[in-house]
Amino acid sequence: MTKFALTVTCDSARGIVAAIAGFLAEHGCNITDSSQFDDTETGRFFMRVSFTSEKGATLDKMSDDFSAISSGFGMDFAFHDEAVRMKVIIMVSRFGHCLNDLLYRWRIGALPIDIVAVISNHMDYQKVVVNHDIPFHCIPVTKANKPDAEARIMEVVDATGADLIVLARYMQVLSDRMCQQMSGKIINIHHSFLPSFKGANPYKQAYERGVKLIGATSHYVTADLDEGPIIEQDIARVTHAQSPADYVSLGRDVESQVLARAIHAHIHRRVMLNGNKTIVFPASPGSYASERMG
Amino acid sequence: MTKFALTVTCDSARGIVAAIAGFLAEHGCNITDSSQFDDTETGRFFMRVSFTSEKGATLDKMSDDFSAISSGFGMDFAFHDEAVRMKVIIMVSRFGHCLNDLLYRWRIGALPIDIVAVISNHMDYQKVVVNHDIPFHCIPVTKANKPDAEARIMEVVDATGADLIVLARYMQVLSDRMCQQMSGKIINIHHSFLPSFKGANPYKQAYERGVKLIGATSHYVTADLDEGPIIEQDIARVTHAQSPADYVSLGRDVESQVLARAIHAHIHRRVMLNGNKTIVFPASPGSYASERMG
Amino acid sequence: MTKFALTVTCDSARGIVAAIAGFLAEHGCNITDSSQFDDTETGRFFMRVSFTSEKGATLDKMSDDFSAISSGFGMDFAFHDEAVRMKVIIMVSRFGHCLNDLLYRWRIGALPIDIVAVISNHMDYQKVVVNHDIPFHCIPVTKANKPDAEARIMEVVDATGADLIVLARYMQVLSDRMCQQMSGKIINIHHSFLPSFKGANPYKQAYERGVKLIGATSHYVTADLDEGPIIEQDIARVTHAQSPADYVSLGRDVESQVLARAIHAHIHRRVMLNGNKTIVFPASPGSYASERMG
Amino acid sequence: MTKFALTVTCDSARGIVAAIAGFLAEHGCNITDSSQFDDTETGRFFMRVSFTSEKGATLDKMSDDFSAISSGFGMDFAFHDEAVRMKVIIMVSRFGHCLNDLLYRWRIGALPIDIVAVISNHMDYQKVVVNHDIPFHCIPVTKANKPDAEARIMEVVDATGADLIVLARYMQVLSDRMCQQMSGKIINIHHSFLPSFKGANPYKQAYERGVKLIGATSHYVTADLDEGPIIEQDIARVTHAQSPADYVSLGRDVESQVLARAIHAHIHRRVMLNGNKTIVFPASPGSYASERMG
Repeated sequence: MTKFALTVTCDSARGIVAAIAGFLAEHGCNITDSSQFDDTETGRFFMRVSFTSEKGATLDKMSDDFSAISSGFGMDFAFHDEAVRMKVIIMVSRFGHCLNDLLYRWRIGALPIDIVAVISNHMDYQKVVVNHDIPFHCIPVTKANKPDAEARIMEVVDATGADLIVLARYMQVLSDRMCQQMSGKIINIHHSFLPSFKGANPYKQAYERGVKLIGATSHYVTADLDEGPIIEQDIARVTHAQSPADYVSLGRDVESQVLARAIHAHIHRRVMLNGNKTIVFPASPGSYASERMG
Repeated sequence: MTKFALTVTCDSARGIVAAIAGFLAEHGCNITDSSQFDDTETGRFFMRVSFTSEKGATLDKMSDDFSAISSGFGMDFAFHDEAVRMKVIIMVSRFGHCLNDLLYRWRIGALPIDIVAVISNHMDYQKVVVNHDIPFHCIPVTKANKPDAEARIMEVVDATGADLIVLARYMQVLSDRMCQQMSGKIINIHHSFLPSFKGANPYKQAYERGVKLIGATSHYVTADLDEGPIIEQDIARVTHAQSPADYVSLGRDVESQVLARAIHAHIHRRVMLNGNKTIVFPASPGSYASERMG
Repeated sequence: MTKFALTVTCDSARGIVAAIAGFLAEHGCNITDSSQFDDTETGRFFMRVSFTSEKGATLDKMSDDFSAISSGFGMDFAFHDEAVRMKVIIMVSRFGHCLNDLLYRWRIGALPIDIVAVISNHMDYQKVVVNHDIPFHCIPVTKANKPDAEARIMEVVDATGADLIVLARYMQVLSDRMCQQMSGKIINIHHSFLPSFKGANPYKQAYERGVKLIGATSHYVTADLDEGPIIEQDIARVTHAQSPADYVSLGRDVESQVLARAIHAHIHRRVMLNGNKTIVFPASPGSYASERMG
Repeated sequence: MTKFALTVTCDSARGIVAAIAGFLAEHGCNITDSSQFDDTETGRFFMRVSFTSEKGATLDKMSDDFSAISSGFGMDFAFHDEAVRMKVIIMVSRFGHCLNDLLYRWRIGALPIDIVAVISNHMDYQKVVVNHDIPFHCIPVTKANKPDAEARIMEVVDATGADLIVLARYMQVLSDRMCQQMSGKIINIHHSFLPSFKGANPYKQAYERGVKLIGATSHYVTADLDEGPIIEQDIARVTHAQSPADYVSLGRDVESQVLARAIHAHIHRRVMLNGNKTIVFPASPGSYASERMG
């Protein structure tokens, strides 16, 4: 039995759910989970439906047949086979906690993705990546070689057919061009509770402001630094007795989890863009479960 | 424009969502929010649909018409008019924080209910209740008069037509008979993280065990003390430096919020019973907003 | 047996703790709780000591005797009698949840303060305040009368001898002059996770930015709007399915608790100013416990 | 400059802090952090003092000199050199998330310990441990060989001079004898919010009870299974839509963090036993900071 997901966006109108549910029933599909959101401010409708097919439905056939419905409502839609894993590139600089965390989740199948490459501007994590049998690309970045470096990164993206780039504490700013080209396909973790403390040294900024909670924010990367649509955020409590270096340690756990949750939502097609905001539908039953003990 | 909710439970089967969505579309209704859950363990299906009618649908007509669908799937279902407020009785003993909290939420319309009575076995809160223009019934309970006292409580229930009893730190155990008679209609707040520390003095029990978090649990009342289906739970951090009397204070905030959240979910028909567990669907957009400033 | 607190600030030096502890022992005092902080960045030392006296020590005598020690270390210090309650003025505009919350905590003795006045620029809460036998002052504020209104506020401050002003959702900006005059004696609650979303309509700002957590911040008021030293912060989770009006409701609980915690810390002399930051020492054992059941 | 910690327990009495602080001042030591707790229920006093020596104090000399003071108050005490790392054995069965997490923290110096061995009853983590240049001991456990296996474990303990055993999801119950022999030196992580759901399959138990939060508890191991003194606990939110297998995934993050926090507190001598409860003093400034970037 195969599991599928359908994502739909269109203007709100009566009968959308009936049309979608009717279509799936006619095609012998069982809806196993469904979430929707009507944005009354913009008049846009968003839906994610999980379903199984008992009749061996193929995505191509479904997509073709669905066009009759989608055209009536002016829908953007996509069918996804949950068994097809997203191809993901992880990029990292010198802080490796998110990388370590993601590799573990990937290893036990808690993040069902294919990691097709790890790219870094440093050599620190070559060994650990290679031990996981994942191709490691060291692409140093300097002021002088920046465009070249990015071209090399894009070569890896093209060669691997990557669906998603995860910036797991990658400390180089990407060019506007790359941001646009990969729009909605690059997820970053920023070590502050955005919109507070954008840019460099957010923990130091937080320390100097004297906040009582530090945070982390995972968001899609856009050409505006740290301004992209937020997917997930969380915080940790700090006191006067913690230094910026303490914040770095306390923040590691928050960053790792916030990034992992954002990726989990993205790969299960639970995130939908709504202008500069995101809709993040709840996880489907069983979707957190890992594939292997570990 | 009227807002309605439909709740449905039945055995899982293909086409349920299509049938429901189709029915609503045919009756000129717009689905504004929808949540569903398939319990793969029990094979039961649960759904809550919010919708508006542009054609002046009446609940009776909808219910009648829906029977064609419901009988096919063997559905338990109910249509609810969101403009019709539940009639609620609050019961309280000597700790008044939940009462105070609920009265405030009710006053500003954050909990759209009709409080038809406050019943207490003590006189402490007579004045505050009367100041809110709510009927106050003092029904003292002793070992000797227990059945009589409960009969008087049930008289108030009957006379007011109450849909829900909230035990807002009411410290008397209700009889099995009353629990069964009002099954699924009595919500309690217990000041522990159930199933830990059932019964009396949970904060003292927690202190003696040396836990690092204290909790509160809101649940439907059943004949088994503190064993009913859990609706909501939350916790607060404590340290070695807090005494049981400190726990009581720190716990007040948790109890008040957990109880209010459980009531919010119940009155919006977001809670569905699934054996001794509950399904609690997410809040519909706008449902937290209060009706009045305050 | 009387409980006292001593707060001390000075430049770091060897022997401070020994000098203080020795002084207290010589004066027949038992240290029951003690917290200290060395700010290695600024070289400043901060300490709070709780103690009891078995020999009927008086604050005046202690202060006089302590000058021998304090002058040697260049200490700022103060002895406090925990039985002497701070005189507090609560100011509120049209959102009354913090007021309601504070009144309840005060009523049961969970916040051991004397509320000497409630001041509002509206009449909404006159009745509830009067029901608590607290003097209510309605001082409307317009562009035209602002200086006069503030003069009237300061008259109440002077007449009552207030030690602390709590801005419990008071929506008027105080003048620089008043901020300076009452420096360290005005606590505000701002309904955002500062430094994000300063100024007006923070929930709307948060909604438009698409954050996944909303927050509240309690801070001392300075002439820089929403820039004063932060005492306490907390957050609540929101999703795409919540509107700004939902945020207002979800934020109420966070605001009420954050403000109450900040006041609790302030009145127990647990907050010490360190430049534009605060040191907030942990609560002493038993200090959360309320004086009365309720 | 060396950093030291002094831990003291004795019956409460006037002058303890003065005696300790005076002693340290006389020995040319600067107190950098200090926490104390008076248990008014038992009359016991607990203190932890961090200090630096400018005069090259040695632990032996300090201990000897301190005996004059300690004997007067009947103190149990210990001086610790913060530069001397605890020798730690990690034990693990088939779930490796805590191991992976601890290895990462150890690698970057966020947990300043010496991992002298990893012991497992399975082979799963041999490679990862060896890649970290840590001795790996596979000691299978069966009903038949249990005493022998434990004897082999104790041989490793003796041979390495381990100060602490961390049960990082080690699924075998240790004998009473070993628990007593290593009393206060074995830290376990249990995947429930104790005292709820002791023993086997706590996530399944939690699922069946229908709780809305799952938890993890780190505690010292005693002969009573899952009844030892609790060091740290935390929780994660679950909904009806999560299965026991989902709980396992969501619980991993909580378990890893709770265990790491408990170890952090233990190795910094912040945990003191108080009957079957623990005192956990706040972390000293800078103690979370890692020694290396990573």
